[in-house]
Amino acid sequence: MTGPATYFDPQRADVLDAETRMLVERRARVLGSAYRLFYEQPLELVRGSGTLVWDRDGTEYLDAYNNVPSVGHAHPRVVEAMAKQAAALTTHTRYLSEGIVDYSEQLLDTLPEGIDNVMYTCTGSEANDLALRIAKLVASDGQSTGQEGVIVTSNAYHGVTTEIAAISPALVGVDSLAPWVRTVDPRPDDPEHFAASVKAAISELEIVGIRPAALIVDTIFASDGVLPDLPGLVDAVAAVRTAGGLFIADEVQPGFGRLGHGMWGFERYGLDGAPLRPDLVTVGKPMGNGQPIAAVMAPHELIDRFSEQSRYFNTFGGSSVSIAAAQATLDVLRDEQLIENARDVGDYLLGGLRTLGLESRGAGLFIGAEVGPDAVAVVNRMRERRVLVSTTGPANTALKIRPPLPFSVDDADRLLTELEQSL
Amino acid sequence: MTGPATYFDPQRADVLDAETRMLVERRARVLGSAYRLFYEQPLELVRGSGTLVWDRDGTEYLDAYNNVPSVGHAHPRVVEAMAKQAAALTTHTRYLSEGIVDYSEQLLDTLPEGIDNVMYTCTGSEANDLALRIAKLVASDGQSTGQEGVIVTSNAYHGVTTEIAAISPALVGVDSLAPWVRTVDPRPDDPEHFAASVKAAISELEIVGIRPAALIVDTIFASDGVLPDLPGLVDAVAAVRTAGGLFIADEVQPGFGRLGHGMWGFERYGLDGAPLRPDLVTVGKPMGNGQPIAAVMAPHELIDRFSEQSRYFNTFGGSSVSIAAAQATLDVLRDEQLIENARDVGDYLLGGLRTLGLESRGAGLFIGAEVGPDAVAVVNRMRERRVLVSTTGPANTALKIRPPLPFSVDDADRLLTELEQSL
Repeated sequence: MTGPATYFDPQRADVLDAETRMLVERRARVLGSAYRLFYEQPLELVRGSGTLVWDRDGTEYLDAYNNVPSVGHAHPRVVEAMAKQAAALTTHTRYLSEGIVDYSEQLLDTLPEGIDNVMYTCTGSEANDLALRIAKLVASDGQSTGQEGVIVTSNAYHGVTTEIAAISPALVGVDSLAPWVRTVDPRPDDPEHFAASVKAAISELEIVGIRPAALIVDTIFASDGVLPDLPGLVDAVAAVRTAGGLFIADEVQPGFGRLGHGMWGFERYGLDGAPLRPDLVTVGKPMGNGQPIAAVMAPHELIDRFSEQSRYFNTFGGSSVSIAAAQATLDVLRDEQLIENARDVGDYLLGGLRTLGLESRGAGLFIGAEVGPDAVAVVNRMRERRVLVSTTGPANTALKIRPPLPFSVDDADRLLTELEQSL
Repeated sequence: MTGPATYFDPQRADVLDAETRMLVERRARVLGSAYRLFYEQPLELVRGSGTLVWDRDGTEYLDAYNNVPSVGHAHPRVVEAMAKQAAALTTHTRYLSEGIVDYSEQLLDTLPEGIDNVMYTCTGSEANDLALRIAKLVASDGQSTGQEGVIVTSNAYHGVTTEIAAISPALVGVDSLAPWVRTVDPRPDDPEHFAASVKAAISELEIVGIRPAALIVDTIFASDGVLPDLPGLVDAVAAVRTAGGLFIADEVQPGFGRLGHGMWGFERYGLDGAPLRPDLVTVGKPMGNGQPIAAVMAPHELIDRFSEQSRYFNTFGGSSVSIAAAQATLDVLRDEQLIENARDVGDYLLGGLRTLGLESRGAGLFIGAEVGPDAVAVVNRMRERRVLVSTTGPANTALKIRPPLPFSVDDADRLLTELEQSL
């Protein structure tokens, strides 16, 4: 998220039509300078269905970027489930409710045995914040000083709370990380590098008297450029555990079947040996197809140790409406076999990108395609050709292709055709 | 939130009927030990309308506790607005949208001139976390080390992120506060005490080389026992500003008209002299009548200084569905004159509580009524008599009465009748 990005430049408002320009100006006045708009020509979307979205003028766009509406924009089953629950009751977790218990049982069934508790939040940021709080308390035997060590990848993004911004170099820059954070470079081409770097980071922390609480990685390394099957992750996790730390799998982006196999990104690892089992798993974005719901999952032994030290209540976390949305999303994911679709169409799309001569990598419908320093311009040209994508990687040199999961072979062909024209 | 509380004790599951007991056990297995249920006899709510809720068996309860469904449970205008927007499109703030601009303009119009920017989050915790991040950056001239000082009240609760838990003694206990936090005791009966305590806290921080970044208070002091019109707040704010810190008004609980006048709790202060103007205002709970939406509001000068240092993007914050819910909630608040209702019925209820011989305090429909060490038992007896309330204060000796705003005189009479029986 550093380097040039695909955002609208307020200095270039003169390229906009009068109506758009007025709305952009009104928006800047109230939302202020920390907000960004996508594209040289911002897009005003008013309607969506499946993988398609429409702007105010009725122009249709193919959405190959948004991972939140994962089972498709405005999916009628999710919309209906939310509307029905909202019309009955919106309430919180301090009253009994069967819905949250049913959903939690189904969700935990998708995780390795032993990961048997789930705690709900509203955002992936809150989920990572809570996971790290738990990890720090547990790793320090309940004596957390907030100074326990955390290891992240060099362009990691895990969220925006104070604590999580301080472990997110992609957001704040390496210089603004907390002093108890160390970064490691994920290099897909060097099998020894990652585990060796994590071991070096542990040593560095120990030299200054900091014990490692956690290694946290996004299991598709989305902001590091989309790196499936990073060699050495299993060994790195083992090294962190030996040093007393925990492994947090941040599944906020790769989770819920986007990678085209099972439900979770960490399942790709250690399949030849012992499967990789995280200590804590965080989930978010696609969980409620747009409804703000996220969660931390962990063995009850960890949650018990946390709850001896602290209570936790998130007013909106796991509200009855959010659970209704999450349940419908999970039902659709299964009933429409969207994980299989992500696998098949993802493979097809990856092949097509390589045929265009692009070094491309990914899993399922999470793909990075290297186009070089021109990537931002390509994204803007694609938008003019009515296909929405973005960029990723430390220098924004790769296209980030991450559509809603009902993306079809026809959608893939449309993307490839427009990409060829845009390159 | 310390001391005995009105939660279900899992050791006493034998008092439950078989069906409830089974659901409680299934729930504990998946949600784990950090979750709590209200009441000795947990309540399974399935439907709500206005100020009433119904359990699974069809038994009706008067809700005098829940402040989130502020314009009434399942208000049809809010439900319809959400359902309509969800059926069209759920998306985020990096696309243009007229709805968020319209709503933001109306929201900012309710605040003092100069507070002209709003940033959206999903929860009050995230709003306070962001407000404190901004305050620390601004107070330290962009060089925040995370160690800038924060002053809170002695039983304050501001949220659950790592950063905000560390300034919330009601959640973590005084011993677990961050080392850069100082607490001050809000004493309604001593006009000099509060400002003097804040000045002393500033001095204490300065002795250890910490400059104060912020004084943050919930303007109704809900977890400190509900204290409207705390003497000395205006002087305390002046002292913090003199020392280079900012004043954050946490309106997550009192905001949006609950206090029966205007929109915000801070408006009660300094009306005889210069009105009290916060530097940052945080809002949440009732904002979307249950939909997860919250916000930070501040002068653009502060946001500009923050955005020079950091970007901020909250995927679900201010999503199109959340904004639709917030807009409908604001419309209903005005159209049904609920602020005036909060004032009139709040006054009536406060009078009735005093007639019962209870030392009671509050503003609008946010009331604390002292019943002494028996308060938890009274709350459970009220639940058996089908009226929902809770407790507050450092030792949970006061009833916390905080109903949806359409609470009527008849509702107040019903509460008073059942309370008289429960005392």
